[in-house]
Amino acid sequence: MDTMDKINKFRDERDWRQFHNEKDLAISISLEAAELLELFQWKTPEEATANGLERIKEELADVLIYSHMMASNLGLDIDEIIADKLKKNALKYPVDKSRGNKGKYTEL
Amino acid sequence: MDTMDKINKFRDERDWRQFHNEKDLAISISLEAAELLELFQWKTPEEATANGLERIKEELADVLIYSHMMASNLGLDIDEIIADKLKKNALKYPVDKSRGNKGKYTEL
Amino acid sequence: MDTMDKINKFRDERDWRQFHNEKDLAISISLEAAELLELFQWKTPEEATANGLERIKEELADVLIYSHMMASNLGLDIDEIIADKLKKNALKYPVDKSRGNKGKYTEL
Amino acid sequence: MDTMDKINKFRDERDWRQFHNEKDLAISISLEAAELLELFQWKTPEEATANGLERIKEELADVLIYSHMMASNLGLDIDEIIADKLKKNALKYPVDKSRGNKGKYTEL
Repeated sequence: MDTMDKINKFRDERDWRQFHNEKDLAISISLEAAELLELFQWKTPEEATANGLERIKEELADVLIYSHMMASNLGLDIDEIIADKLKKNALKYPVDKSRGNKGKYTEL
Repeated sequence: MDTMDKINKFRDERDWRQFHNEKDLAISISLEAAELLELFQWKTPEEATANGLERIKEELADVLIYSHMMASNLGLDIDEIIADKLKKNALKYPVDKSRGNKGKYTEL
Repeated sequence: MDTMDKINKFRDERDWRQFHNEKDLAISISLEAAELLELFQWKTPEEATANGLERIKEELADVLIYSHMMASNLGLDIDEIIADKLKKNALKYPVDKSRGNKGKYTEL
Repeated sequence: MDTMDKINKFRDERDWRQFHNEKDLAISISLEAAELLELFQWKTPEEATANGLERIKEELADVLIYSHMMASNLGLDIDEIIADKLKKNALKYPVDKSRGNKGKYTEL
């Protein structure tokens, strides 16, 4: 079973689709992203990842799970929307201007 | 090329791996989640998705792209961490107790 | 003692100023905002405020406390920066165009 | 006029109270916190505050303005909820255990 099917199976076994309006799913993604970020609070990246990898895995997975649920609701294909966005980003960040440059595209 | 390879190729062509410490990636995921959530602000889910699907796709893709970048940094397999987390969630939310119930596991 | 003094006293009694770099304070504000938002997840505003007022007070206070700490670090006066921002917002949202209109200023 | 009155005047001149349900205000606080955090992304605290103080002031003010609006909706006094929360935090973080210690209260 692929990842989206596993997530949908988990949701449907619990009959949770009825609660999953997209606004609350967007809130969920934001909250899980905050729980992930919390693992880095008051720490250097090295400190956070050295001791907290197990929790990072879990919170990152939660962000991804809710993102898949949003995509499922809207009939979106994860790989396709990522590929489309990378194409758009490639136009905003041309290789020759952005190589080794962390500036925002509006500042390039 | 699979999705992770496409994302890594995009990053490496721009030599951006050097900027991608995990703390700032966690910030990025949080900021992209906020941009996604912004599309739902002051709106019902129906209003937001009826007119805003193109923008939703883009911001959801950004959340997913940064999540893949975090996973890449830490050598994590996306499908594996999702599968592992679903197993943990299944223990916290047993089907018989959580079916049709949106309560948090601490309240079940 | 005024509110800012109370907050600084709390911080200094614990000798926490040394940890309070502005980047981590910005993370803290964001995390407390997420904890506040969590109280509204999967709920209508009415459901959330009817039963959750005590928790809302606490999380809202946390957002405000960290915001004061950021202001203290940077030598900013809370009332002054709010007054300045209201003046800027008044230019972006002129009364005649924005009355009863929830559109963003770019759409007015 | 005090700060809360100024904020309420701004809102009421535009007849915006009708849109300000507490769930969307909680979303707003979270989004403004993200805009503040964005000013620190990919930067050290020193880099961010050296060049970005004007923007930091504005985004911090936005967090505070929406926090006041939430308090206004719920009939809460800002200074009072902060004072109450500081008292609770003082119990969670006793001076003798937390002095110079950035650990979470569950780890003290």
